Amino acid sequence: MLLSPDVAPIPMRAVDLIRKKRDSGEHSREEIDFLIAGYTRGDIPDYQMSAWLMAAWLRGLSRAEAAALTEAMLHSGEVVDFSELPAKKVDKHSTGGIGDKTSLILAPIVAAGGLFVPMISGRGLGHTGGTLDKLESIPGFNVNLSLADFRRVLKECGMALIGQTREIAPADKKIYALRDVTATVENLGLICGSIMSKKLAEGIDALVLDVKTGSGAFMKKEEDSERLAELMVDTGRRMGKRVVALITDMNQPLGRWAGHSVEVFESIEVLNGRGAADLRELSIELSAWMFLLGERTPTLDEGRRLAESLIASGKARDKFRDCIRLQGGDSRVVDEPDRLPQAALRTEIKSPAAGYLVSTRCEQFGTALAMLGGGREKKEDSIDHAVALEFHKRIGDRVAAGETLVTVHYNDESRLAAAQALLAECCEIGAQPPGEIPKLVKKRIVEKP
Amino acid sequence: MLLSPDVAPIPMRAVDLIRKKRDSGEHSREEIDFLIAGYTRGDIPDYQMSAWLMAAWLRGLSRAEAAALTEAMLHSGEVVDFSELPAKKVDKHSTGGIGDKTSLILAPIVAAGGLFVPMISGRGLGHTGGTLDKLESIPGFNVNLSLADFRRVLKECGMALIGQTREIAPADKKIYALRDVTATVENLGLICGSIMSKKLAEGIDALVLDVKTGSGAFMKKEEDSERLAELMVDTGRRMGKRVVALITDMNQPLGRWAGHSVEVFESIEVLNGRGAADLRELSIELSAWMFLLGERTPTLDEGRRLAESLIASGKARDKFRDCIRLQGGDSRVVDEPDRLPQAALRTEIKSPAAGYLVSTRCEQFGTALAMLGGGREKKEDSIDHAVALEFHKRIGDRVAAGETLVTVHYNDESRLAAAQALLAECCEIGAQPPGEIPKLVKKRIVEKP
Repeated sequence: MLLSPDVAPIPMRAVDLIRKKRDSGEHSREEIDFLIAGYTRGDIPDYQMSAWLMAAWLRGLSRAEAAALTEAMLHSGEVVDFSELPAKKVDKHSTGGIGDKTSLILAPIVAAGGLFVPMISGRGLGHTGGTLDKLESIPGFNVNLSLADFRRVLKECGMALIGQTREIAPADKKIYALRDVTATVENLGLICGSIMSKKLAEGIDALVLDVKTGSGAFMKKEEDSERLAELMVDTGRRMGKRVVALITDMNQPLGRWAGHSVEVFESIEVLNGRGAADLRELSIELSAWMFLLGERTPTLDEGRRLAESLIASGKARDKFRDCIRLQGGDSRVVDEPDRLPQAALRTEIKSPAAGYLVSTRCEQFGTALAMLGGGREKKEDSIDHAVALEFHKRIGDRVAAGETLVTVHYNDESRLAAAQALLAECCEIGAQPPGEIPKLVKKRIVEKP
Repeated sequence: MLLSPDVAPIPMRAVDLIRKKRDSGEHSREEIDFLIAGYTRGDIPDYQMSAWLMAAWLRGLSRAEAAALTEAMLHSGEVVDFSELPAKKVDKHSTGGIGDKTSLILAPIVAAGGLFVPMISGRGLGHTGGTLDKLESIPGFNVNLSLADFRRVLKECGMALIGQTREIAPADKKIYALRDVTATVENLGLICGSIMSKKLAEGIDALVLDVKTGSGAFMKKEEDSERLAELMVDTGRRMGKRVVALITDMNQPLGRWAGHSVEVFESIEVLNGRGAADLRELSIELSAWMFLLGERTPTLDEGRRLAESLIASGKARDKFRDCIRLQGGDSRVVDEPDRLPQAALRTEIKSPAAGYLVSTRCEQFGTALAMLGGGREKKEDSIDHAVALEFHKRIGDRVAAGETLVTVHYNDESRLAAAQALLAECCEIGAQPPGEIPKLVKKRIVEKP
């Protein structure tokens, strides 16, 4: 470049794009494509991509850049085409939290309502659980379907639940691994690209985003959650998809249970018309949005009523049973939940004083669960599907001294003490009731035309 | 880390140090040591180092961090011990510019004055020339001495001029290569570490820094040059060395010539008591500082007078002749400069109008020289030692229409047109004289206790 001023167009070079982002420049779509395609092919080495990721982390990505990144990552692999299916394809993505098992509930509801739910999910890492791990607590359940089998199951029962395949957004897989070891994970544009590229590769028409906020979420501050939600909704809109985001509370666990097999159990409870009120409410709300965006119902209210009726009639539960069977699982667990793995031992965390539950250190519940064997530190780690936490109180509840706050279900004595120490600090008991009970659905971020 | 709260001390991890710098943290000496030693050994991969470099580029390094970085890089290799020599060891480093050949002049002066000058220099890259390349225009001159031969030549004639060996600051070599391809070169702390680690590895007692500023320097703004100078002086002080920095003008070439063999020629001119006034002035000024810091003279003025007398007596020139001979070069060039390679062709750049030379695009002179074959774009490129630019006017000089501004000495017709086009834009001719003639030595940055 130095030796040829004012001559032929200069070929694009990674180092110049790194410099541009370093100096707060905005990349063109072509530049983003060059980076992502070059990195996926291996033409751009890890050390250049990681320098660019750090520059992007610190300088930020514009909405147009986030959309271009999403699209480039999406097109790094296969984009599934389900256009032959006779109804809209809709999905939900959650940014993750403690006890968040709504995927297992709303997928059967929405499939029972006649839409298709082609759901590609992730595994747990860090303090949050993953849908795939929960499903694998069902004996025989296979989340590693080929794309052909994914299509077959989806066609047959309206829903299918698998993990990211090699064909789907390989750029995301490669970039995520690099972000993990270069401290470049928590950036809105990069998070948006990672989530949305995978979801849009599913060949969906509409997407409902559940962006968690609070002490148990990746985003602790509501304004950060909102900004991520807005960016993802905008990215979806730019790519011609209908997208809505709900900002929902994660200052305390969702539902009564956190773990793997217990979350399958609790999901079946809700599908049977029982279960915790908050979990049921959020599952119905998210289902209703899926019905609305998938044009199954003309209003959100009708979507809610449809979801409730599909639970009441047992059709949603039946759909879940079908799906488990089609993916090789023991579908008897739906009617005989004792067939799910259960922990051998239990102990209780009791309240040291009388008063009210005023707040929780919600993320620590997840950490404690991981310490008991129910989570991973590294991707290769195996997990104990049976360990669980059972929550007896919700924020605002009155608590007597010595009353049980959390029941710990575990298998390995040697892991208990450290988890117990952490759990003892998780519930803050106050003399007065909390000033405010966290609202479950805090805000909706809808598409702007 | 996630799974073991409040237990044994956590081992240091590169990802945590990257995160710390990303979040504007200040590293401890141990953290810097861990990064540099780990990277030099290959335990820390390129992709983590490049993410850290970008974070450091954007967040900056404190003075303590820059000093720790310098020391860690210094100790990544061998630190030469010249304590057996009977006088102080002093050196000079320039941040580089057009026509800057003072090393070839002051090293013989200072060695003739009785101090030792163990100089490890670089090659040209981009628009600036390198001392090693200039020396190699002398037939037979060997810059690739082993450390043992370096020591022998230095002992014998008081000066030795070599390139960076494998033993010297290997961390710098590895990190510089990575910075070059990840847009993380131009950062004060990183530049300081790179320069100072190599210079301090020479086993010197004192160092004079010539920090260039202006249109032909890496740092175009005087305040940036000052900040770099202050950082390097501070780093030297922290490591127990005497260091001074002169901020000197690079808004026009230094001396009458730029190229390789012509710069050797012009250096010999100065050593013979001739040569351009500005080049002579700066060479004497830098030599005087080396005499002062090397405790050869009690005052700067006495240092200047000593330098002048060593030129007048021919002792400095004789020292240069000795050094060339000891490093395998044809020392007859000192007395018969026609033995240096000369370009076959020449052409002139003439002034389009009458007036005054008011400014130069000084960096473009270097770029034009490189385009003629006298520079490198990549490290592996070979260069034409004979191509040269001869400058006939200095800023403030009166110029007639059609008068020659620059004579171009070249060998390859095919390379001329592009260089000519660039050179035609390099000299700004104004109707009025410039308001200010750039001062050669703008400022001194001295050690603060």
